[in-house]
Amino acid sequence: MNVRTAWTREALAARIDHTLLRPEATPGDIDRLCEEALRYGCAAVCVNPIYVARAAARLAGTPVRVATVVGFPLGASLTAIRVAEATLALSQGAREIDMVLPIGLLKAGEIDAVRADLQAVIAVCHAAGALGKVILETALLTAEEKVLAARLAVEAGADFVKTSTGFGPGGATVEDVALLRRVVGPSVGVKAAGGIRTAEQAIAMLEAGADRLGTSATVAILEALPPASPTSERERPVA
Amino acid sequence: MNVRTAWTREALAARIDHTLLRPEATPGDIDRLCEEALRYGCAAVCVNPIYVARAAARLAGTPVRVATVVGFPLGASLTAIRVAEATLALSQGAREIDMVLPIGLLKAGEIDAVRADLQAVIAVCHAAGALGKVILETALLTAEEKVLAARLAVEAGADFVKTSTGFGPGGATVEDVALLRRVVGPSVGVKAAGGIRTAEQAIAMLEAGADRLGTSATVAILEALPPASPTSERERPVA
Repeated sequence: MNVRTAWTREALAARIDHTLLRPEATPGDIDRLCEEALRYGCAAVCVNPIYVARAAARLAGTPVRVATVVGFPLGASLTAIRVAEATLALSQGAREIDMVLPIGLLKAGEIDAVRADLQAVIAVCHAAGALGKVILETALLTAEEKVLAARLAVEAGADFVKTSTGFGPGGATVEDVALLRRVVGPSVGVKAAGGIRTAEQAIAMLEAGADRLGTSATVAILEALPPASPTSERERPVA
Repeated sequence: MNVRTAWTREALAARIDHTLLRPEATPGDIDRLCEEALRYGCAAVCVNPIYVARAAARLAGTPVRVATVVGFPLGASLTAIRVAEATLALSQGAREIDMVLPIGLLKAGEIDAVRADLQAVIAVCHAAGALGKVILETALLTAEEKVLAARLAVEAGADFVKTSTGFGPGGATVEDVALLRRVVGPSVGVKAAGGIRTAEQAIAMLEAGADRLGTSATVAILEALPPASPTSERERPVA
């Protein structure tokens, strides 16, 4: 059952962080995740820190990057620990770090503390040539807080703002993606994550301004899209 | 509306870790939590690492202890980071550390890795004269895995096994509390946490074998109990 769209399977896969962050995920589940990401050509796998070294070993020499999470999913660990967690993950092969913004501090108006926390983690990412993504957990924020959080992430040097952890009370929405795109402008990425289960949802997020998607439903999403490449279209014999 | 029970408000309060781990909790929320724990005489407050120093300052010189969480709530951070997180929290005044068992490793049968991880965190707790509690996240485990997890926690030196994070697919049950009590015996504590909202539930957990409860509904639970102390009963004039 194919979805009618201009997006091919390959083009959409290149936007997906194939994600498995459930606490009960086993090493075998991570191996399967890596194989799927390779087969479809995903941008990255996103795994918990405990599995970074394993995923990096499986994906060494391939274009699929390893992403992991820091201060996840509550955003309530201390900056020194987030920095240590990011540093260790980078040393084990992570190329992208998805960190959760300290939500309570943002809500309390402790803006300088939030910015400094994000800056510290992003600095170790950039020193390692890796990307730093800031998860806002938009479902817990007011519209004003979403704008403020995205601005702080950009000021702190984030490469991406990301809507959600997938463990909060809500996931990505088309409205939030469009809002974040307006706030961060064209030079910072927007990653939509949380609750993206279908190809229709995935495409709606991209059309609203996302350039990366985080989902664990990658296989179902991609199998709903046509695999046809332009080359095979061109090579089809004329009747 | 008082619950009919032999438990007084004071006796039950002494079993409660008054808990606030929501990611959106603000410093002001933590101050309120500490005041409530003091007013009712709770065993401890349980807060995220970001708020340990604040809670310890508010509760300095009082009998209320500060507990915090490590590798929370997914149990999927690396041992070195859990140890660093516990060490920092202890240096900031935490007296109890609730750590999440690495659930995926347990399910994969990596028993030695799980035991070693728990041992490492518990060792820094004990070196600081603090308690180490191991959260099993029972809702994600089979009956066999619950028994195995509790045994590993005891082997690793845990002072308590704890049912749940409160962020998983289910919380404490009377059946799980009774099971854990049978497995760990009388010399290790059992903490019931997750979904305890009423005095009836709280008392049922204690009667099933729990000696500590984690809940954010502390005020509602305790206000449903009689505050009467034995002394005031004795002093009541005879008619």
